[in-house]
Parts: sequence; structure tokens; C-alpha cells
Amino acid sequence: DRLPASVRDIDVGKTPGHHPVTQSRINEILVEEAQRGLGVVRLKGGDPFVLGRGGEEREACEAHGIPVEVVPGVTSAVSVPAAAGIPVTHRGVARGFTVVTGHEDIPQLPTGGDHTLVLLMGVTQLARSTELLVAHGRSADCPVAVVERGFAADQRTTVGTVATIADLARSRGVRAPAVVVVGDVVKLSPDWPAQSKERAVTVTSGG
Amino acid sequence: DRLPASVRDIDVGKTPGHHPVTQSRINEILVEEAQRGLGVVRLKGGDPFVLGRGGEEREACEAHGIPVEVVPGVTSAVSVPAAAGIPVTHRGVARGFTVVTGHEDIPQLPTGGDHTLVLLMGVTQLARSTELLVAHGRSADCPVAVVERGFAADQRTTVGTVATIADLARSRGVRAPAVVVVGDVVKLSPDWPAQSKERAVTVTSGG
Repeated sequence: DRLPASVRDIDVGKTPGHHPVTQSRINEILVEEAQRGLGVVRLKGGDPFVLGRGGEEREACEAHGIPVEVVPGVTSAVSVPAAAGIPVTHRGVARGFTVVTGHEDIPQLPTGGDHTLVLLMGVTQLARSTELLVAHGRSADCPVAVVERGFAADQRTTVGTVATIADLARSRGVRAPAVVVVGDVVKLSPDWPAQSKERAVTVTSGG
Repeated sequence: DRLPASVRDIDVGKTPGHHPVTQSRINEILVEEAQRGLGVVRLKGGDPFVLGRGGEEREACEAHGIPVEVVPGVTSAVSVPAAAGIPVTHRGVARGFTVVTGHEDIPQLPTGGDHTLVLLMGVTQLARSTELLVAHGRSADCPVAVVERGFAADQRTTVGTVATIADLARSRGVRAPAVVVVGDVVKLSPDWPAQSKERAVTVTSGG
């Protein structure tokens, strides 16, 4: 909305389940516009190299001899947990974290509560994801948070455990876009119940 | 340098091996200045919640009733590989990535070239890290990049394999600050030799 009139805006915006322009067409547009001699800015949400297909768009351009500069961004994998008060690492709690987008990786992931998992694979698959986590060694008691609509006015966090989160999410109508965080760092969230570890759900809103 | 004169600047800057102000003193300063009624901005490099001890600083403030707003940043774990042309995920190459800062996590990490590892634990420990990676299942042939001084004018990338990178880094005098990336995504770097997979080192510079 704040671009000068000389800039043409081509909206290829994706929302969950709605991709008005295919990835291959996006790649073509980048190449076509650059070949017309224009400077092209491909503006993306999040980081272009964290499940953002930025690498493919760069390859498409470079295959046509178009030089590309990549500007890293703030990835939702880290920033959405932060918006809910959850640091993906925290001294004495978690030294490392893993970001995955598919179930294929789950059998090999670290299992300790001191290693944070960020699942970007979609809340519709939460029941299957948590089943696989337990089947491959993660404790059913491990804390989990689902953060919907990070940074939006209606941001909402649901907390539970690997055992309880899928049912909680279903009963609360949790929907994409959402980021799932698994690990002891979830206990650092203000949404984690301080008084009783048995109470495993709280409701919050705010950005 | 661009702050108005009414803003007081307290430098607690850390550089590798040089921490002029201890973490506990930093926490105290944040609390003291806020308790004087001032608005306090704790400006950090990278993301405050990715091995940035932001969670501890927040806890220190909140323990004194001081409200804290966290602004996520661009983490070097993702952006420094990007600066060297390496996407931490890439369709058909890697679906997920893990960021670790200590050796303790290595025995449990995914071993496939299709899962990217980012090691922030320091290049001085590179030989030990790569030994442990092989001992715990990662292929000795897996590509590795070490990116020194990401985004600086004298940024330098060294590429090799899990088997070769420690010797290469030593012979080239690789030093902190540096980010280590392990996985098939390293082959997407312009620094990866296109003609021969046997040639396992190239030299580049530039920001």
C-alpha cells in the first residue's frame, strides 16, 4: 500500500489451502519480469529459505542468468513461538531445536524434552504427528504448544502435552496457520499453568 | 551512532571469547534501568531466543514485575547459511533442519543428508563435532560448509565433507564467528564445486 506508483505489484499470495498462482508460474513471472529489464523484488512472509521455496526461485532465475540477492527474514519457526513467550532455546532447558515440515523425519528426531521440536506440518495432522512422536521415543508427558495466527490480534495459544494436545486442538477448533512447539521450553510460556502441571490447557489472546 | 542525544547507550557487547559484562550483570542493568522509570531497549544481534539468552533476560525483568516485549530477529542459524547461498531447507533436498550448540545433542540427531544440521558450537570444536557425527551415523561423505563472518565484507565459505572439513578449516585458519552447515543443501551453494565432487574446497569472499 505504500509503494510508489511506478512500482507494479503482482499478488501471488498464498494462504493455507489457497495457492492462486502455482510455484512454477511464480518462477516464470520472476524470470519474465527480470528479462524485461526490470528490477524484481520477490517479497515473502517469513524467511525465504525456511520452507519458503526461495531456493527454487533463485535457481529458476540463475538458470536464466539473472543474478539474485537473498535477504534473510524472520522465520515463523522461531518468531511465532517467541510471540507466545516460548524461546526455542533456553539455558538449562534446551540447547538446540529442530524444525520439520513432514512426518518422514519424525522417527529420527531427538526425543528429550531438552531438544525443542517445531512442527510446521499443519495442525490437521497433529494427531498423527503426536502418535509418531510417542512411537519414536518422545515422552507422552512432554509439553506442547500450538500457536495460531502468530502476531495477529487474535493470536491464540493452546498448551497441553504430547498425549493431550491433539484432542485439545480439535475441541478448540484450532486451525492453520499455526506453529506447533514440543519440548520443555513450552513451560516457560505465560500460558503454561504455573500452579498445577495437571491442568494442561489455558486460553489466551493478544498479539 | 544514530540515536538521539536523549538516549543513553550502555555497551555490553560480546565478541567471541570476550564478554566484558557478565550475563548476570546484564540482567541487573536491565532491571536497574527499568526501575529508574526508563524505557529500556535490549538490542541484540540475531534472534534473542536462538541461543541469545533472551529468555533469561526476560525472566530477570519479569521477576521484578517489569513487563517485557520480545521482538524476534533474524537468526544467524538461518541467515548466515543463506548469505553463502545455502538454504537450510529446499524442496527435494531437505525438509527440515536442526540447530545445536553443544556436543551433547549429536548422538540423537537425524543422520540423513536430507536433514540439515546447523552447528553453532564453535569452529574450534569442529574436529570433535565431525568425529561424533560419523560415530553416530552421519555419512563421512556428507557435504559441510563453514561460513565465517556472515554478511561482512570479508565473509568466507569453506566447503568439504564431514571427513575433510576439520582439516580444511585448520589449514585455512578458519576462526569464529562462523556457522557450520551439514547436509546435502550445501551442494546448492555456488561454492560447491560443480564439475567434480572430488574437489572439496573452494575459496570465496564477499558479503
